Amino acid sequence: MDSFREGDAVFMRFLDGEDLVEGIKQALKDHQVTAGIVLGGVGMLSKPGLVYYKGNGVYAPIALDDDEFELVALNGNVATIDGEVFVHLHATVGKADGQALGGHLAGAKVHMTAEIAVRALEKTMIRVLDPKTGLKTLRFG
Amino acid sequence: MDSFREGDAVFMRFLDGEDLVEGIKQALKDHQVTAGIVLGGVGMLSKPGLVYYKGNGVYAPIALDDDEFELVALNGNVATIDGEVFVHLHATVGKADGQALGGHLAGAKVHMTAEIAVRALEKTMIRVLDPKTGLKTLRFG
Amino acid sequence: MDSFREGDAVFMRFLDGEDLVEGIKQALKDHQVTAGIVLGGVGMLSKPGLVYYKGNGVYAPIALDDDEFELVALNGNVATIDGEVFVHLHATVGKADGQALGGHLAGAKVHMTAEIAVRALEKTMIRVLDPKTGLKTLRFG
Repeated sequence: MDSFREGDAVFMRFLDGEDLVEGIKQALKDHQVTAGIVLGGVGMLSKPGLVYYKGNGVYAPIALDDDEFELVALNGNVATIDGEVFVHLHATVGKADGQALGGHLAGAKVHMTAEIAVRALEKTMIRVLDPKTGLKTLRFG
Repeated sequence: MDSFREGDAVFMRFLDGEDLVEGIKQALKDHQVTAGIVLGGVGMLSKPGLVYYKGNGVYAPIALDDDEFELVALNGNVATIDGEVFVHLHATVGKADGQALGGHLAGAKVHMTAEIAVRALEKTMIRVLDPKTGLKTLRFG
Repeated sequence: MDSFREGDAVFMRFLDGEDLVEGIKQALKDHQVTAGIVLGGVGMLSKPGLVYYKGNGVYAPIALDDDEFELVALNGNVATIDGEVFVHLHATVGKADGQALGGHLAGAKVHMTAEIAVRALEKTMIRVLDPKTGLKTLRFG
């Protein structure tokens, strides 16, 4: 993973086989970002860990009948949970026949390459468990 | 809906059951934004009002065989129509089995939570009816 | 295609029948942008050239059984190849029944209208052939 920061923009370029979420976290650490907005992402993913939120803290895995997907859209944000950077990602991926799948992205390995952009924020954004939804929802500092 | 503005970024966090479009409009009003770019959105939506533009001003509703969807991507922009803020949104949503649906988003209630980011512009962006397409297309002031 | 630049934001509005990729390249040239991040895009596309990367430099076309699609998400970036601006785009599009398709976008004509936003970067971003993947991957200057 190679990255640079220009103003509040952080741009990352991944190589085949790299861990997407760990790589994003590494780039954010390298560029001192603890809050931000995911501006987008393109490339390919291998066996993306797409999940659907069922409530009560339970994410149900989405079954995939393919191995490699185009990463066609990446949305999300950066905050901290108990002082650790957490990247909340939702991905849209495309199959070889074009069919799109989407969900919360729990993790993924990069296939071929991936190009990700994040906008850093100075604001403190933290996630705290919300008993009503079972989610760690955002609070602004 | 809770929100903050940092420079030209407006970030919003929604709670379960809140109206997505009304909430975005409220945050934009609170932070004095009348033109902008939707940077992204994640969370979940309940019975999203997805529609497909047929031409001549007619949007055809997209039938949904599910109630709750992951909001996997949100694109769009902010402008005014006759002085009123209008948020143009296109959403991609994911079903429990991962199937993605997409269209123009006429409205939606938030399920569980939603996290939306907009970049404010100072430029005047207005929408005016274009008789050729039946759409209120953008003009720059 | 009409466009403006405000700070590092470039916003474009397309008319029916215009070439999306050529139009984006024209706007970037008009506003002196050679590197950047695609912030999003909405509108409609006619027969979008969606493709899936098979490796070894081969993109397989995705068959479409429809002509016009909502453009529901646009991700990507701007760099140069041998000094020429190249726009790397991945699109998610929606059919009249809501089904979403996604892939690398090789080209597309605008249907009705399209509204695209790019964030300019000052950094030098170039694409160089990577023999391992067959892709022109990004390098940062």
